[in-house]
Amino acid sequence: MTPKHAIEQHDNQVGLVGLGPMGLALADALLNQGHSLTVWNRTPGKADGLVAQGAGRAQTVSEVVAASPITIVCLNDYETMYRVFEPATAELDGHVLVNLSSGTPSEARAALTWSAEHGIDYLDGAIMVPPPMVGQPDAVFLYSGDQGVFDRHRATLASVGDPRYLGADVGLAVLYNTALLDMMYATMNGWLHATALLDSANVPAEKFAELALGWFMPSVVDYASLAELAPALDAGDYPGALGTLEMNLNALEHITRTSEEQGVHSGSPRLMKEIAEHAIAEGYGGRNYLAVYELFKQAKPRS
Amino acid sequence: MTPKHAIEQHDNQVGLVGLGPMGLALADALLNQGHSLTVWNRTPGKADGLVAQGAGRAQTVSEVVAASPITIVCLNDYETMYRVFEPATAELDGHVLVNLSSGTPSEARAALTWSAEHGIDYLDGAIMVPPPMVGQPDAVFLYSGDQGVFDRHRATLASVGDPRYLGADVGLAVLYNTALLDMMYATMNGWLHATALLDSANVPAEKFAELALGWFMPSVVDYASLAELAPALDAGDYPGALGTLEMNLNALEHITRTSEEQGVHSGSPRLMKEIAEHAIAEGYGGRNYLAVYELFKQAKPRS
Repeated sequence: MTPKHAIEQHDNQVGLVGLGPMGLALADALLNQGHSLTVWNRTPGKADGLVAQGAGRAQTVSEVVAASPITIVCLNDYETMYRVFEPATAELDGHVLVNLSSGTPSEARAALTWSAEHGIDYLDGAIMVPPPMVGQPDAVFLYSGDQGVFDRHRATLASVGDPRYLGADVGLAVLYNTALLDMMYATMNGWLHATALLDSANVPAEKFAELALGWFMPSVVDYASLAELAPALDAGDYPGALGTLEMNLNALEHITRTSEEQGVHSGSPRLMKEIAEHAIAEGYGGRNYLAVYELFKQAKPRS
Repeated sequence: MTPKHAIEQHDNQVGLVGLGPMGLALADALLNQGHSLTVWNRTPGKADGLVAQGAGRAQTVSEVVAASPITIVCLNDYETMYRVFEPATAELDGHVLVNLSSGTPSEARAALTWSAEHGIDYLDGAIMVPPPMVGQPDAVFLYSGDQGVFDRHRATLASVGDPRYLGADVGLAVLYNTALLDMMYATMNGWLHATALLDSANVPAEKFAELALGWFMPSVVDYASLAELAPALDAGDYPGALGTLEMNLNALEHITRTSEEQGVHSGSPRLMKEIAEHAIAEGYGGRNYLAVYELFKQAKPRS
């Protein structure tokens, strides 16, 4: 966190567009860090509490942009951003736009093109924490785009959390965000599906969790140990000496068959089995399980 | 581990059928703990090393069964067990069979019926560690079936690892084993797929792992925190105040679309999206993400 007295006048003025739960959390953090904040929201009433705390309420998006060198965007998606900012493109010229809306890398790249056409310095970002954590020193925000823009406004960005710069490819922030959520959902689903298997034999989730989460996962799929496998992925090095994909397919067949026999949803194990089968069909049967990475990297298996 | 002198004569004699890599590891552990071991394998030469260490080599399965009150089975599957033990059913009467082969709960239940018909005390088990860990005090083995049989032979079972008794339902050992592997594969796949997304933007696996495994997963999907959600699953209690399944669907749509746009395999995110859609169609849209558990518990969504 930047202490208030360290914020220069230039960085002190911030605009914010979008006052959903996340936008309100951002506004709170910016006010708490002593910024001079101007806000705009489609429903102006959302700003009432912030105005009482000292924020300025802009009547138009042009007004919010003109009031500050940097405007933070926290809207639902990129389409909404274009609709909201189109009337303010003249004021945006020479200003900074930091877009924290959700989207895909191609949407981020299109937004950079749009920004360049209007003389806007554009940064794309992703918020990795829920609203209550915004403003805390360990609230991670991911950013990508022009490093100069990031460096110049780092102090402002640090007011809402821990800013991490990922690189010049403007799509990286949403791509990282998407990949991290992908991994989160896959892990959650794995646990929920496994728990459903035990439920089919009347074992409570709480009892299964003792063994599954209290012992098995931390000792077999410990996150730090997974990280040690990453260099093998980069090298495409999947030696099968300690266990082959063929052996893993056997286990995945058991999981699929057990799900079917126990009357549990079998979509996820069946897909994992099919992915292993495809990787074997492509010649990875004697390699270890990590070789399915080669299949994940392809939109479709090579025939 | 049971010290040698504490093993009674009765428990000292153990039979073992199946000398693949796992069977050999079991034999080593039993010999190291001072058991009088008799072994049989389809290819007798596999026993040479064990015979040199003092194990007895049976010429037939009947001979291995007759030599000990308890015989451990470590074969590929249940079918193989039936084929191997059919000629020895007379000798099995009144003896204990501990089956550590892989299978499904219904196969374990069928094996119990078969055992009862032949007067065999049957225990079903699953080995949760790779061969090099067998015999270590923290090598978890899961068992299910008659608790009296388990208790009487606990000392013998403790010679190969840490025996955990799961309950009288004989299918529980393979069901737990299957569910734990299910969760392991799902988590591995989640990480590998997320890593493939970053690879599409030329970010190395090692670099992504720093953020994904060094920070995000341990702080957001910490296994101990997941366990705290288990009682909500047992209660079917999924309040949506802090985030709804509808909101999660939005994220899953982004993940699917990003996978497609980046040319990465999109099967897994698409299935996760469909599962969320089904759960929403069943009325869980306003609940939190854990509500997909209700869908996993069903073979097919209710229409």
